[in-house]
Amino acid sequence: MRNIQLTLEYEGTRYLGWQRQPQGMTIQQALEEAIEQTTGVMSRVTGASRTDAGVHARGQVANFRTDSALPVERLQGALNALLPRDIVVLSAEDVAEDFDARFSARSKLYHYTVWNDRVRPALERNLCWHLRWPLDLQPMQEAARLLIGRHDFAAFQSANAQSETTARTVLYAAWERAGSKLTFAVEADGFLYKMVRAIVGTLVDVGRGRKSVEDFGETLDSRHRRRAGRTAPPQGLCLMAVRYAEMEG
Amino acid sequence: MRNIQLTLEYEGTRYLGWQRQPQGMTIQQALEEAIEQTTGVMSRVTGASRTDAGVHARGQVANFRTDSALPVERLQGALNALLPRDIVVLSAEDVAEDFDARFSARSKLYHYTVWNDRVRPALERNLCWHLRWPLDLQPMQEAARLLIGRHDFAAFQSANAQSETTARTVLYAAWERAGSKLTFAVEADGFLYKMVRAIVGTLVDVGRGRKSVEDFGETLDSRHRRRAGRTAPPQGLCLMAVRYAEMEG
Repeated sequence: MRNIQLTLEYEGTRYLGWQRQPQGMTIQQALEEAIEQTTGVMSRVTGASRTDAGVHARGQVANFRTDSALPVERLQGALNALLPRDIVVLSAEDVAEDFDARFSARSKLYHYTVWNDRVRPALERNLCWHLRWPLDLQPMQEAARLLIGRHDFAAFQSANAQSETTARTVLYAAWERAGSKLTFAVEADGFLYKMVRAIVGTLVDVGRGRKSVEDFGETLDSRHRRRAGRTAPPQGLCLMAVRYAEMEG
Repeated sequence: MRNIQLTLEYEGTRYLGWQRQPQGMTIQQALEEAIEQTTGVMSRVTGASRTDAGVHARGQVANFRTDSALPVERLQGALNALLPRDIVVLSAEDVAEDFDARFSARSKLYHYTVWNDRVRPALERNLCWHLRWPLDLQPMQEAARLLIGRHDFAAFQSANAQSETTARTVLYAAWERAGSKLTFAVEADGFLYKMVRAIVGTLVDVGRGRKSVEDFGETLDSRHRRRAGRTAPPQGLCLMAVRYAEMEG
């Protein structure tokens, strides 16, 4: 049986997130329906990240197994003809039998976009978090640097989630400003549920002067969710890339 | 009576263009309804450009007259609270009595975005023209340069339109590439109906090798619409800025 890896771009606005659920349409369901129409057989798709409702992707990675003999270029073309306009397969390739989009992942890179302006955005409205009050980027940058390395991120885990281990390694964390647009880029070997959004909500408190850089460091060390700020809304978040070891792809 | 100038950003996807019409919602109508709700009086709004259905703006300029005593900051806030999420007033100011957004304009700057990639875009789907075949930017750039200066642009006028004079002065015209995104920027003292989209459709023929740079120059000189390429679709077009003489604003 073949193992096919897909790289996906999607706008999450209209979907209830990645994972199939009875209440409405999800990215996984849209994709599985397109695959079934193309190959004639239902295949279960595994995504590297279970993105939440409203969260976007420019580099989600997924895989599925199939007996279809369709060359990957034809498969990609057929899927893109069938998928809704807000989901697209950027690339498709045959990969090793043991490749698993979720468990083979070495790291994931997310961007979170804040629109920091007195006036709300119209064109970017579904792709950012609009914050009116002026944010001071310098302390936000310093606080972001404290995230880098191996830490217990329990303070930035969703209150409802209970991961077995809450230690993760952050490889990169920094803000960039382009006009009104502030982008937080963060790469880690894994993320707890709603971790990026809890971090962004807390960093924004630092940018507003409600929390000092030291407070932010203490919040991280505390491992108590109540010490952190509110969870930033989903529409600012975008999964940019998933990285795998060279040999697995 | 006060004369208020508004700078607007909007996504044209859901609208039948700028100008009011009975068949459905337009930007002008949405704006006039918000103004009436805010001031209590119906005011007619004049836009610098009558953008077509599906065309966007990051710097449309409009003006209207009102007896309202609301300070412009309050007026802007009220309009933005009432307007749909895909339309926003970026700025509002009191201007001289004789200022007219349309007739006082000295020049307008448009961007046209082409997504040049084998794969269609998902996140940018409503903001660009997707072209699969590879475009050669260099001859497109050379051809664009021929537009600069005062010319009779009859060849790039919509077949149904009949402007009295078809001479316009192009101040700037150039392409820029950023990954798969090609942006054509063009500034002129005025544009004929669908002129930018007819120019882009023809420049794309040059980029595909269907027309040489010389052919493009001859098309411009011919003043015959049938010599030009097809009209590029509206969703790639965005009105970026309208410029006025210093003293009028």
